Amino acid sequence: MTEIKNVSVKKAANVYFDGKVTSRSLTLEDGSVQSLGIMLPGEYEFGTDAKEIMEILSGELEVLLPGEDEWRSIKGGESFEVPGSSKFQLKIHSVTDYCCSYIV
Amino acid sequence: MTEIKNVSVKKAANVYFDGKVTSRSLTLEDGSVQSLGIMLPGEYEFGTDAKEIMEILSGELEVLLPGEDEWRSIKGGESFEVPGSSKFQLKIHSVTDYCCSYIV
Repeated sequence: MTEIKNVSVKKAANVYFDGKVTSRSLTLEDGSVQSLGIMLPGEYEFGTDAKEIMEILSGELEVLLPGEDEWRSIKGGESFEVPGSSKFQLKIHSVTDYCCSYIV
Repeated sequence: MTEIKNVSVKKAANVYFDGKVTSRSLTLEDGSVQSLGIMLPGEYEFGTDAKEIMEILSGELEVLLPGEDEWRSIKGGESFEVPGSSKFQLKIHSVTDYCCSYIV
């Protein structure tokens, strides 16, 4: 799906790590929320409130999921899930474009 | 207006200058197109096809518009217009969040 239709977009961006990670929040027709974001090369730690599904549109990264010891390599076209109320670490190897879905 | 309603969002980001400038393309209900973008500190030159209205949501920059000799300082809450089929230069001083409207 190359276009997300009939959404509301929060005009102001979400900006993290001095702009190295930024995103836009979308509210879909069914009330669910997604964010479309960009991560520049670097290492980051994020925390979740709700469970998240991170769909990687393009780019290459490694993720260390909560409770795991092995970093997973992820590239464009792949996705990973993060449980709610947890932290995960990322090593971004190339500019990464993502779509995050929040599962409440 | 903090939210743009009933739009379609192109899922893949527009990425320029190794990710230092990125944006998302929106198609509004009336068919007009806008892009919501982020520019990290740096110096950039852009070209326009259609006339553009650049609304700066937050950040600080200077712009050199076509045909002008003086750089203009622009900050969040302000905007500037760029004629179609022309080039303009930007000096981004802090992470800048913008909304660009294309006037066809």
